[in-house]
Amino acid sequence: MEFPSKLIEDAVNEMSKLPGIGKKTALRLVLHLVKENENKTTALTQALQKLRANIRFCKTCHNISDDEQCNICKSHRRDRAMLCVVEEGKDVMAIENTAQYLGTYHVLGGIISPVHGVGPEELKIESLIQRVGASKGEIREIILALSPTMEGDTTAFYIHKKLKDFPVKVTSIARGIPVGGEIEYADEITLGRSIMGRTLFN
Amino acid sequence: MEFPSKLIEDAVNEMSKLPGIGKKTALRLVLHLVKENENKTTALTQALQKLRANIRFCKTCHNISDDEQCNICKSHRRDRAMLCVVEEGKDVMAIENTAQYLGTYHVLGGIISPVHGVGPEELKIESLIQRVGASKGEIREIILALSPTMEGDTTAFYIHKKLKDFPVKVTSIARGIPVGGEIEYADEITLGRSIMGRTLFN
Repeated sequence: MEFPSKLIEDAVNEMSKLPGIGKKTALRLVLHLVKENENKTTALTQALQKLRANIRFCKTCHNISDDEQCNICKSHRRDRAMLCVVEEGKDVMAIENTAQYLGTYHVLGGIISPVHGVGPEELKIESLIQRVGASKGEIREIILALSPTMEGDTTAFYIHKKLKDFPVKVTSIARGIPVGGEIEYADEITLGRSIMGRTLFN
Repeated sequence: MEFPSKLIEDAVNEMSKLPGIGKKTALRLVLHLVKENENKTTALTQALQKLRANIRFCKTCHNISDDEQCNICKSHRRDRAMLCVVEEGKDVMAIENTAQYLGTYHVLGGIISPVHGVGPEELKIESLIQRVGASKGEIREIILALSPTMEGDTTAFYIHKKLKDFPVKVTSIARGIPVGGEIEYADEITLGRSIMGRTLFN
């Protein structure tokens, strides 16, 4: 693609480094900013710059936070007996949006994946074990909410093994047919798991 | 959507003001920046800020430019007898990418659209007329490359009327079946125009 201006080209190149943004989309976004008032661009760049400079990670659960400790860990209304282990901060957001869970979280920051060179040391697993130990029995259940993939299962298994000496129940979120999903279109593994993990009808 | 951090929320709000970027996509982009090294964000915001602060519009053709005059208007290799009239700078890029046109351009900055409150005064039409007049016959052909819509036709008609006293030929880009398009799937108007505008086979 030929650009009429070096400034446009540089901006498009930077913009298209974002995930899912190709050169054409980047160009559309950049031309939009050029057309709009300059303070729109300033507002955007300042928000991003401020975010990147000031964002912190909660010292307890490692979720994204404005302060040393995140709002969930700080809250007195959350059940400290339950700890939900997730891969990323966006999983916390997804679970929070269900409004079904009132416990706390622990963000691993990824998942064990030898293919991508991610071992247990790269993740906040040791911090999880220490947290469970330091809670002196206050944490009674660890809910593993990891992806239903090979990597997710490996990570879950590893955490489960590490926690076996603690008086804590380790559970995993239910796998099954999604609400609204049709049985005939479910894959065999999901359908199989949904049969194995059947619940009492009431 | 609930955000774990005010900084994230602000960044997502600004990001989702861009065209075609919803809250979910904005969040994905913002979380990507948080995960990456801080200098990635700096590079992006600086490129955007620099673009917005320094971008200029060519004094001759009104296309986006780094300088007072754009590279096309400055070039000695362009044919000044032909002037292609387009709506936006991105149309110039699209035509330049074909490498079929070696004349110059004139960017209107929009199209006459009473529905959106855009009249001829909002566009660079007066500047086009002056440019044709000032060229003292050097510009011999005006190629209208406007959208084949009601607004595009209105704008083309308006420009054509304004130019009728100048010794200049006004043409319009060909409408017809796209290359690779199948006749049976073409709409009637396009097919009709392609028959009316048939060319000698050679």
